[in-house]
Amino acid sequence: MTMWIGEQEIEDLAIGAALLGTGGGGDPYLGKLMVQKAIRKNGPIKMIDPTEVPDDELVIPTAMMGAPTIMVEKIPNGDESLKSLQLVEEQLGKKAYATMPIECGGLNSTIPFVVASELGIPVVDGDGMGRAFPELNMETFNIYGVNGTPMGLYNERGDKCLLTTLDNKMLEHISRGIAIRMGGACHIALYGMSGTDVRRTAIPNTISLCIKLGRAIRQAGEGKQDVIKAIEHITENSIYGKSVVLFQGKVVDVERRSTDGFVRGKAIVEGFDNFEGEELVVEFQNENLVAKVDDHTIAIVPDLISFLDLETGSPITTEGLRYGFRVTCIGIPTPDIMRSEKALQVWGPRDFGYDMEYQKIEEIYDTRREKV
Amino acid sequence: MTMWIGEQEIEDLAIGAALLGTGGGGDPYLGKLMVQKAIRKNGPIKMIDPTEVPDDELVIPTAMMGAPTIMVEKIPNGDESLKSLQLVEEQLGKKAYATMPIECGGLNSTIPFVVASELGIPVVDGDGMGRAFPELNMETFNIYGVNGTPMGLYNERGDKCLLTTLDNKMLEHISRGIAIRMGGACHIALYGMSGTDVRRTAIPNTISLCIKLGRAIRQAGEGKQDVIKAIEHITENSIYGKSVVLFQGKVVDVERRSTDGFVRGKAIVEGFDNFEGEELVVEFQNENLVAKVDDHTIAIVPDLISFLDLETGSPITTEGLRYGFRVTCIGIPTPDIMRSEKALQVWGPRDFGYDMEYQKIEEIYDTRREKV
Repeated sequence: MTMWIGEQEIEDLAIGAALLGTGGGGDPYLGKLMVQKAIRKNGPIKMIDPTEVPDDELVIPTAMMGAPTIMVEKIPNGDESLKSLQLVEEQLGKKAYATMPIECGGLNSTIPFVVASELGIPVVDGDGMGRAFPELNMETFNIYGVNGTPMGLYNERGDKCLLTTLDNKMLEHISRGIAIRMGGACHIALYGMSGTDVRRTAIPNTISLCIKLGRAIRQAGEGKQDVIKAIEHITENSIYGKSVVLFQGKVVDVERRSTDGFVRGKAIVEGFDNFEGEELVVEFQNENLVAKVDDHTIAIVPDLISFLDLETGSPITTEGLRYGFRVTCIGIPTPDIMRSEKALQVWGPRDFGYDMEYQKIEEIYDTRREKV
Repeated sequence: MTMWIGEQEIEDLAIGAALLGTGGGGDPYLGKLMVQKAIRKNGPIKMIDPTEVPDDELVIPTAMMGAPTIMVEKIPNGDESLKSLQLVEEQLGKKAYATMPIECGGLNSTIPFVVASELGIPVVDGDGMGRAFPELNMETFNIYGVNGTPMGLYNERGDKCLLTTLDNKMLEHISRGIAIRMGGACHIALYGMSGTDVRRTAIPNTISLCIKLGRAIRQAGEGKQDVIKAIEHITENSIYGKSVVLFQGKVVDVERRSTDGFVRGKAIVEGFDNFEGEELVVEFQNENLVAKVDDHTIAIVPDLISFLDLETGSPITTEGLRYGFRVTCIGIPTPDIMRSEKALQVWGPRDFGYDMEYQKIEEIYDTRREKV
């Protein structure tokens, strides 16, 4: 289904993507401003369903890579992502029919709209993570056999790089080094693929889902609906599963440290209401990875764990978490395409250093409820 | 003057380049074997004078980048440098008329001959350092205005990268990061330029000079001539100045540590014969940078400081220096093109962290002799 994306939809997208971004994916503020400026200049942007891309046409996803905090200091000119896409076009000798996001997350769900607006091409409604993840090989595109290169990298100075690797693990490894040396962050285009491959490998309709979630959160903020119920309803009617409230309470401690280019740490939340007397610990590495209540794991990557402000329903990033915040922690079952054996070999708990098997959030939740 | 390079010439080139490499530039062994294998397969390789390149023809220098020690463990397939050159050719839409070295040094003076042999093109007799230096912007090509990019990088796995930067300082910075992530070392092609630019910016006839020096050292080893006199004679009749014996003695201490991708340290030599009672200290950072006798600087970068084995006359790399070695330390005045104000801003003493002005080796030597 074709949608036309205006300034309001981008506002909602940024909020919804922060929710699916599970604490990571960067602050949406800058990306949102960039798209809104583009829309004011070029009009609403066309977003198409994966089924609308002709089989042999080329889709080139675009994104930013590196530390989102650096982006805010090195404000983009606005055409870097476009230029990274053109590097890939030149190498493939073919124009892009459309672009698309590689992840749901504050920043990277908006970048492709800047490119689409400038080029007058549509954005495909879908992505390769269905959430945010820290590495570029953590993509359904990779898991289901798309070559991530040729990859274009471009920085705000105009330095550029065209990278071709034998596999997508090396893509991540080398491009991460380039992003660091390009000044800590750069703009990228990668995983160029046919319409057929988009349908085969992408997680469909995640962007329109973000917009729906964002709209619900906004309307809840305006007092029009209960945000938790709205999120439950929207996720239940998507390829994700119905969201569950994992915990409610007050943030009493946040540990956060930057190591190896990642933000690692944990948040401790003291329960109230139904969770009185219990303690929630959420461990994160850019994104929230594991949620434990009194040492029992209640949700684990790749299922989604997100914090919402209890009053406004707004998603809170790991960067934004502070002592004293009153929060709802919700969990969302990840789509089946992200739970395959192949997928769990790339983003299962062990890939983040946890010595445990993946267990579906809804199964843990049911067992836990039975006990209660 | 056209020369045909056979196995013997490569043997001599490797030795002479180790001398001009001033302790750095890597072990010549592997590069030598690779060229000799190519010569056995394809016959002698043509080396041409810079004046023989037509004005508008394209010359693309080739080299290895990264830690030479890693090269010995990740033995090249032999076609990586060739492939890096082809990346640049493709980008420029033009075939290379010839290749050439970027530096005089054990390894990188031989690599272009492998490429030339495989492609059936000549090597230009010259380079961009006239010695060895640790960074890719330390090139007369850079100093006199040639853009180093598009640059091709290729590793032994087949991962590849085409890099374009706004300046050659950024070329060095980003490509160093890529080389590290490509496994610590990779093959590169860069500073593609016209015949006119080769003549304007290259240090001419350094490769044939290396061959002459290597031959002299070999013949001295066979007892046919005095190595010091031979080196004096050859350098005196080149664009370099006449070499001088800076010191003779026994190595009594070597400090060597690897930091930031460089080998840093110093060698201490106790004098004998004419230097009895004196102590020489040579500080190095991959290459020998400063020579001091009893705390008086007697030679400093970019002039050349090299150790020769006292018995055989063979050059000794900073890696190879050991306690107990009996050595001659010689200095060679660098060509004028490397002493310009512009040049000294790139590779003067301050660029290596020394808080001192450059002083020509022959001037220090004359003053010192007057005092004695």
